[in-house]
Formats: sequence, C-alpha cells, structure tokens
Amino acid sequence: MAEKFMSMRNLKFLLYEVLDAESLTRYPYFQEHSREVFDLILDTGMKLGQELLRPCFSEMDKKPPELVGDEIKVHPAVKTLMQACGEGGWIGAHASYEQGGQQIPNTIMTAFRGLFAAANYSASVYPFLTSGAAHLILSFGSKELIETYVPKMFAGEWQGTMALTEPQAGSSLTDLTTTAYPTEAGYYQLKGQKIFISAAEHDAVENVVNLLLARIQGAPPGVKGVSLFVAPKKRPARNGGLEPNDVICAAIFHKLGYRGSPITQLSLGENGDCRGYLVGQPHQGLKYMFQMMNEARLDVGMGAAAIASAAYYAALEYTRQRPQGRKITSKDPTQPQVPIIEHADVKRMLLFQRAVVEGSLSLILQCSKFVDLAHLCQGEEKEKYELLLDLLTPVAKSYPSEMGILSVSAGLQCLGGYGYCEEFPLEQYYRDVRIHPIHEGTTGIQGMDLLGRKVVMKNGKAFALFLEETAKTIQQAQAIAELAPLAKSLQAALEKLKTVTGHLTGIAIKGDIELFLADATLYLEMFGIIAIAWQWLLQSIVALPALQKKPAEADANFYRGKLFAGRYFFGYELPKIEGPATRLLNSDGLTVEMKPEFFAD
Amino acid sequence: MAEKFMSMRNLKFLLYEVLDAESLTRYPYFQEHSREVFDLILDTGMKLGQELLRPCFSEMDKKPPELVGDEIKVHPAVKTLMQACGEGGWIGAHASYEQGGQQIPNTIMTAFRGLFAAANYSASVYPFLTSGAAHLILSFGSKELIETYVPKMFAGEWQGTMALTEPQAGSSLTDLTTTAYPTEAGYYQLKGQKIFISAAEHDAVENVVNLLLARIQGAPPGVKGVSLFVAPKKRPARNGGLEPNDVICAAIFHKLGYRGSPITQLSLGENGDCRGYLVGQPHQGLKYMFQMMNEARLDVGMGAAAIASAAYYAALEYTRQRPQGRKITSKDPTQPQVPIIEHADVKRMLLFQRAVVEGSLSLILQCSKFVDLAHLCQGEEKEKYELLLDLLTPVAKSYPSEMGILSVSAGLQCLGGYGYCEEFPLEQYYRDVRIHPIHEGTTGIQGMDLLGRKVVMKNGKAFALFLEETAKTIQQAQAIAELAPLAKSLQAALEKLKTVTGHLTGIAIKGDIELFLADATLYLEMFGIIAIAWQWLLQSIVALPALQKKPAEADANFYRGKLFAGRYFFGYELPKIEGPATRLLNSDGLTVEMKPEFFAD
Repeated sequence: MAEKFMSMRNLKFLLYEVLDAESLTRYPYFQEHSREVFDLILDTGMKLGQELLRPCFSEMDKKPPELVGDEIKVHPAVKTLMQACGEGGWIGAHASYEQGGQQIPNTIMTAFRGLFAAANYSASVYPFLTSGAAHLILSFGSKELIETYVPKMFAGEWQGTMALTEPQAGSSLTDLTTTAYPTEAGYYQLKGQKIFISAAEHDAVENVVNLLLARIQGAPPGVKGVSLFVAPKKRPARNGGLEPNDVICAAIFHKLGYRGSPITQLSLGENGDCRGYLVGQPHQGLKYMFQMMNEARLDVGMGAAAIASAAYYAALEYTRQRPQGRKITSKDPTQPQVPIIEHADVKRMLLFQRAVVEGSLSLILQCSKFVDLAHLCQGEEKEKYELLLDLLTPVAKSYPSEMGILSVSAGLQCLGGYGYCEEFPLEQYYRDVRIHPIHEGTTGIQGMDLLGRKVVMKNGKAFALFLEETAKTIQQAQAIAELAPLAKSLQAALEKLKTVTGHLTGIAIKGDIELFLADATLYLEMFGIIAIAWQWLLQSIVALPALQKKPAEADANFYRGKLFAGRYFFGYELPKIEGPATRLLNSDGLTVEMKPEFFAD
Repeated sequence: MAEKFMSMRNLKFLLYEVLDAESLTRYPYFQEHSREVFDLILDTGMKLGQELLRPCFSEMDKKPPELVGDEIKVHPAVKTLMQACGEGGWIGAHASYEQGGQQIPNTIMTAFRGLFAAANYSASVYPFLTSGAAHLILSFGSKELIETYVPKMFAGEWQGTMALTEPQAGSSLTDLTTTAYPTEAGYYQLKGQKIFISAAEHDAVENVVNLLLARIQGAPPGVKGVSLFVAPKKRPARNGGLEPNDVICAAIFHKLGYRGSPITQLSLGENGDCRGYLVGQPHQGLKYMFQMMNEARLDVGMGAAAIASAAYYAALEYTRQRPQGRKITSKDPTQPQVPIIEHADVKRMLLFQRAVVEGSLSLILQCSKFVDLAHLCQGEEKEKYELLLDLLTPVAKSYPSEMGILSVSAGLQCLGGYGYCEEFPLEQYYRDVRIHPIHEGTTGIQGMDLLGRKVVMKNGKAFALFLEETAKTIQQAQAIAELAPLAKSLQAALEKLKTVTGHLTGIAIKGDIELFLADATLYLEMFGIIAIAWQWLLQSIVALPALQKKPAEADANFYRGKLFAGRYFFGYELPKIEGPATRLLNSDGLTVEMKPEFFAD
C-alpha cells in the first residue's frame, strides 16, 4: 500500500514560509518555544502516524467496532494510541501550563492532528475528541469538574465526546428534548436519547466523558433553554472508584466509511440513575458547546484535507509507476509505454488534487493561527482575529469537505479499475471522506451560518476584514510581474463576491429571509473557491522568490510545483465561481416556490 | 427500504410525449408493434425489476460472488433472472425475427434495461452483457458461430462477456498482447491474460461466451493488428456436449461497489488448449468490438442514470417523511417541525437530482432512438443519425456517469447521518455508481473521443448536425413566451461552445495535438451540460402546453415539476459551463508543461 500520507515539506512551507508560525514565539505566552520545538512536535506526529496509526488503517476498516451486549470492542491499536497520546502529552498539548498542558500553539497542534488524520482518520478521532471535550470543561467547568475529569482525559485514560444530536432533532438543536431534572445533591438526573455520537462507548479506555446538551426541567423552549452537562459513562463513587452512570449504548451504526470509530446511540437514565453535572451557567449550553463545535469544524476540514492528502499521494505513486499508452505525439506502438503521469489529463487530475489539498491545508492552518492570535492579542486586534475566524470557520469546514470528496474521487480515477478495488487504499479514502459534509453541521447548515450569520454580523465587519486581508495579499502580488495576472483575477472575483453579497443582503433588508438564504450553499461554494484562491496567491508570493534564489533541485521542484498548482487553481478552479455567481444574482425564488407535491410523478 | 426506483410516468413522458417512440411503428420493420406492445414491455420490465431484481439488491451487495477453486458462486437470484430473461425473450428482444428476436425497438429496450439497472444494477449486467455479446456475433460472426452460440445466449443459458482489458494495457488497446496462433483445424490457440472482465465466470449459467480481442501471431503492431474471437469457457465437444476450453478464472476483484457482479481475471491457454474462433475478418477486431462497446457505453450512461434515479426516489421518500426544523420564517420552537422537503436547500438538492436523472434519461433515450433511426433509414438520413449517435455517445456515457455520482451524493446528503449508514440504500448507490466513469472507457478517454475524433470527423459534420438539431429546439422554444428566455440561454451556450470548439480546432490545425486535447475532459463536461440543457428544453416544450390543457391534478403536478426542473437546470446547471469555457479558451499549456518531478516535495 502507498505509505506516504502527508508531505512534511509542504507542512513546513505553510507553517514557516507562508504563515511565519515562528513569530508566535515572540509572544510571552509561547516564549519558551522555538522552531526546533515545533519541528520536534511535527516529526513526532509523523512518526506516530507512521508507526501507530498507519499500520492499522485498513484493518480498522475491515474489522469495525462491534457492539457486544452494551459494550463496544474496538481495534486494540486504539488503546495503544490513547496511551501514547496521553504519555506524550498530546491530548492536552494546547492547554496552558497551569492547566496541565504544554502551551503549544494551536497552529502547530492543528498540523499535528492533520498528520494523524492523514495516517488514519478513524483512529485520530479518539484522542482529539478528547482534547476538545477537555478544553470545553477547562473553559467553562467548575474547579471540581476540571480536577475530576481533565487529568484523566489528558492522560488518555478517559475518552471525551460531544453529544448533541438526538433522533428527532438532527440539525435542529432547538428541538433537543433530553431533560435534566435538578436534585438537591447538586447534580441533575438526565433522561433522553442521543444518536450519532462518536466514540461514546468503547473498551480502549476506562471511562467516557460525554459533553452533552440537555434541557433543564422547565427551561425556556428552543436553544435558549439548552444547558451543557458532563454525563460520564461511569461516575466517581464514594469509595474513590467508578460506578456505572446509567448511560447505555443502545446501538452502533454500520457506516459507509469512517468505520474504525464507533458511532453510537446512547440511552440516558433508562433506570433513573444518570447523573449530569452542569457546566457553567444554566441555559448557556449552546454558547459553550460552540467553542468545541467551532474547533471540531476546523478539525473536520482538516480531516477531509488530510484524507485527500493521503489519497493524492497514493494516486501520485501509482501514476508514476503505471505504464500505459504513449505521448499523444508519438503513438508508435512498437515504442515502450510511458508512465501515466506523463499524460496531460492525468497531470490535470493530480494538480486538481494538489490544489485542493494544499489550498485547504493552507486555509485551515491560517484559521488555526487566527485562533492563536485571538488568544494572544487584546482589544481591537483580538476582535479582528475572532471575527476572521468566525467568518472563515464554515468555509474551512466545508471547502475541504466538499472538494475533498472530488479530490479523492480524482485520485481514485487516476488508478482506473484498480482505484475501484480493495487492494488499493483509494476506495477506503473515498468512503471515509464522505462523512465530512455531514458531521459537525452539514454543508447546508454551514452555508446558512456563513451568509445568514457571519457575513452580516456586526454590520458586515467580519466580511470587511476579510476584504482587507485579501486586499493586502493582492497588493503584494501586484508588485510581482509574474503574479500580477493572478492578483487581478482574485481582485475581480472579490468584486463579484461583493456584488453578490450586496445583492443578497439587499434581499435580507427587504425582509425576505427565505429567499435571502435559499442558495446559501452556493454562496458558501463561491466564497470557498475565492478563499482558497487567496491562499494560493499567498503561497505563490512565497514560492516565486524562493525559487528565484536558486535552491537545491528538490526544493526548486517543490517551488515550481507550488507555482504550477497556484496557476492551476487560478486557471481551472477560480473560473468556477461564475456558475454560482450567476445563479446567486438571479434570485427568482425557484427553490422557494417549488412545492413538495411537484416532485410527484 | 425505499421501494421506488424509477418513474414509469417519466419514462412514458420521455418515450411518447417527447420522443414520439410510437412513430417508430410507422416503419415497416416495426409495423407489428404498437404503443400497447411497448407499454406491455415497460410494465414487464417494471414487474421483473420489482419482483426479481429488487428483492436481492442489498443481499447481492452484502454477499458478493466468491471464487471457490476456479469457479465463482453468485447469488442464486442470478440464475432465476437469466432464466426469466431467456424465457421472456428479453436477451434477444432487439434482434430481428430471423435472428430469433422480437424486433423490439432499441428505444424501448433501453428503457427496459434502465428499469432493471435502477432496480439492481449488478443483477442487470448479466442478461444485458449477454445481449450485447450475442448482437456482436450476429453482426459479424459466421453462420456456424451464430448457430452454435446465439440461441443459448438468447435463452439465458450461456453468459456473454466483452473481454478487452489486459493487465499491462488498461485503456491502451494498442498494447494488447493476448495472442492467437492459427491452427490447421481453422480455430486459433489463444494465450494471454484478461482483467476486469465482468461476469466471465459464474455458476448461474452453463457456459460463458467471451467476445475477446487478441492479436493473431505475426499481426501488425498496434490496434491495426487486433482481431475479435469467441473464446468460450466451454467449447462444443464432438459428442454434442461441452468440454473445458482452458479459460481459467485466475482471480476475482473485491470492489467498492457493483459487488453483485463478479469482475474477473482470466488466464487463457495456460495448458495450451484454449480455442478461439475468429469473428469476421482478421485485424478488424477493434472496429467490430466498437459496435458492442458503443452499445455498452450507452448502457453505462443508463446504468448511472438508473442508480441516480433509485437514489433520488429514496431521498425523496425520506425528505417527505423526516420532520426537522421549521420554515425559516417561523422559528417558534413550540410549533411542530416540518418535513425537510419544505426547506429550500433540500428542494434544491432534490431538483438537482431530478434534473440530472431525467435529463440523462432523456439524452440516453434520444440516442437510443438515433440507433433505431440509423437502422431504419437509408442514405443521408441514415448517416445523419449515425453521426449524431457517434457524437453523442461519449456525452451520453459520461454526463450521467460523472453527474450521477454527484446526484447520488446529494441524495445521500438529504438523509444526513442516516445517508451514511447501511440501514438506508444511499450508501450502496454511492458505492455502486462510482464504477461508471471508469468502465467501458474512462471519462478521460471519452473526452478525447469526443474532441479528438467525433467533433472533427468528416470535417465537423456531426458537430454541425448537432447544432442543427439544437437550433430546431431553440426555434420551437422561442415561439413560446415562457420558454423564450431558456431558448436564449441555450443559444448563448451553443455560441460559446462554437467559439471554444473553433479555438481548440485552431490549435489542432496548427499541429499541437497535445495542447489541443489537454483539456478534452473539460470540453466533454461543457458539451455534456449543454446537451442536457437541450434535453430539458425539449421536455419543457412538451410539458408547458400539456399543463395548459389543465390535466388531472397528478398530471398537472408532474408537468409543473418538469417545468421547475427545467428552470432549475437552466438557472443552476447551465451557468456552470462558464468555468470550463474560460479555461478552454485559455490554452496556456499548463498541464502539458507541468513536469512529473514538480509533483515532488
């Protein structure tokens, strides 16, 4: 099987040459770190990926978790992985020293998580779900909750989860019905059902800590009455041990892909003995959960980009080795065949993959740096990074998720019939990557979040900041003759985006909210392409002078490839905004007026 | 599980209201038929689909064929199906009365095959591969070959296959090496390997008849030295029975989807005793095979459209039943949730599926009618239909195949997390449909066929005929006020296609063939969108007056849906030509100049 799943050269290019992640060490909070520390972390991520995650990539798919009684048996590698992550400090790496962490920048840890996800996405979910859940307790939980749960989670002994969805209320959090009944002892009695909860039950850990949304008895209807609870599988007992907490795994879902991680249905309080511990204030649950959710959305984007990365390298390896056909200009059948990477159409498919993968990674790492900067800065600067992050999170979740599918599909296509067969990993990537437009908020939800919330919030301030950032990049590129045409294209695309945005917000101002949001998914698609074009321009601005310095041949080829991939994106992908743009400017209300009964036949 | 897989109402709309298939009965060849006969055939197709194919749809996927020794065990339903198709005369239905067939128009049989494919694509392959192989023997084989093989194939007792691909020569037929050594007895001794051969070994039939390409010893190199053979698994013995023919099934491939049909590797003549019987003249094999291949390509398009159809109806059923969220204009959480089909974004996804499915079916049936007309007509008219068919075959193969993937993916997305789970059929459709851009010539091959061969052949005559046909439709639509804007859009799109075509053929004329064909896949994509827009305009031209006649409510809703789907296609899909058009007009040679080593990192 193809062994390469992610390029360290590219990660370092993005982190150091494009994003200047090293500059983070100039802030006091990160002053103990250095590029050497960051490199060591990345190298460890690669090594763990290669040695712990990769070897069981296919086996975890072929032998998925099994529900036996009400316990789920997972692949034994999960236990080894959780222990290694606990011992290495990787689950809590991002937390502050006081919190028991190592104060590693989010930017670096995002790349680290990407290495894991590319090596074996299903396996990567266990430690990093735990990170997110622990971070949520640290942010809003009481001292007691923190002390009880976080150290065990950081140690990889207890699994963390995020339990939102209910059978009757998929994307509609308004309709959650899991109920928390107050008790005099301070805790709540929980009763309800949760579905599609990743890793909420398995035998690789001693306990599972569900971060769970429920409604306190008598709470207001809708999302304003939702609170956040810790609902562990086992709770601390008086004797210092653990006792069952009436959280029953009622079912496991058999899935298209992403099979190494169990997706469960949980039944809470069937026997009237499920204790939930309130996190923070009552009725603030959704706000709290969105901290974890927003982190998770960036992780989903990274998961998709990472799978697409692994698929790209598998396709690249195959196309280099597989002889078939001849150059179109020398069809002499007595001459030997050439490797298919020589064919323009194959190169196009490879460039597409590289453009999607490295463009997505670039945007996600960019967002991760905004997380760090929002944390490090104060006042207006802090707000700026927070707003940019808010605006770009649905984009950084959805572009890699949607385009990751097409990228993996192009990788599969490079292998022809072999791509469709189980002896190559492409078919698994194809199945695995399909989850990403669904979980942590579907693409439709992300579109409404972007257009209906993020673009218009604070009078369009986040959108204005995005235009400022991209304008800076355009200005830089305009000064470089070779890149000026790309700068001009991005400028024109942004003008079109402004026009479309103005047109749509005009509809919103008139009060027709359904029409305003009807094609929000297309708006997200258009925005995503432009955001990735911006990232490719940023990368090209770095690659061109680097190439002009005449580096060693391997580096030169890397930079040349970057410039080709950038040109590819502007030549082949950016023009695709015309389709959605044309549609978005034509708000004829087609999908609003279409009636369900017209689908009859 | 969702039971509806195809709409009979829509099939009849396309066949009778749009294509006027009944007019075929005015030709003497079809004079014994009538609309009643056609209806009976379609109803039988639906009934067999529902009763024989559908019940084992999921089981054939979950228990795929197994290679035991050198025999493949398939699902028992395959035997029942082959027998039923043999007894019903469905395998040979398209053949003439003298050939043992029923002279059913190809147009009708294509719809019949579509019903099978929508019910269970894997199962549908067995009888219809046999049809194609038998048709090939009938067209070019000797009387003896015909008498020996065709009746058994028509009876469903012997399986037919198409054996082209070899391990070292996937898409490159130039490089076939399977060799045929002449013998004095008249037959040839075959030696070689074939891979990815569908249904070339299984226990539901008594024998398998491989239509196989091989090179006669000493033949010229390249495709000019390729001949067509019948290479049966068992050959007729002197005693009137059958004896083994040294065709060994060496392997079976485990696949992403399309699992109900075994894809095999064949080893021919390992023991020096594999007899091949030449079909037609030596070195004409490729030309002959392309008859079957072109039929197979339309069938692949139909297979993709059919799977997308089944997925669409599964999604439609779910979205009607699943309550979630509220209309965006009434967010009161105390009000009940609405079925998700009420949401504009869900309607958009459903319209997308309907537009792809019914647009694809329309184009494929249109091509099938060209097959009939080419057969029925003479002289210039015959040539016209042959040329249109030649031109549109790669389009009718590829648009449904590529867009079918996206259509099924949209269907899966409609179900959210459930779409990703095995309890709904979407995940299987998603796996099954992915084969279509690969088999019977990849999309890349189709692009080069369209641009490099079909568009330019006979001085662009086929392309000119396509422009004439579309111009007629545009003229009709212009006369209808409601459709005039769509006519104008199609006109503009065709102008753009002409510009792009002129630009590209200009490059060809200058001799830069690699650059000319570098983006042939994008040309195919653009051409496909326009061809489907044409089909939607044709459908709209029929639906609008039909609606104005104030039919019963069910019919009215059907026509209203048609008009919405047509408007959807023009509003959302046709503008997507701008992306590829922009690229195609910018022939900067990017993918030609990109060097394999620049993919290094």
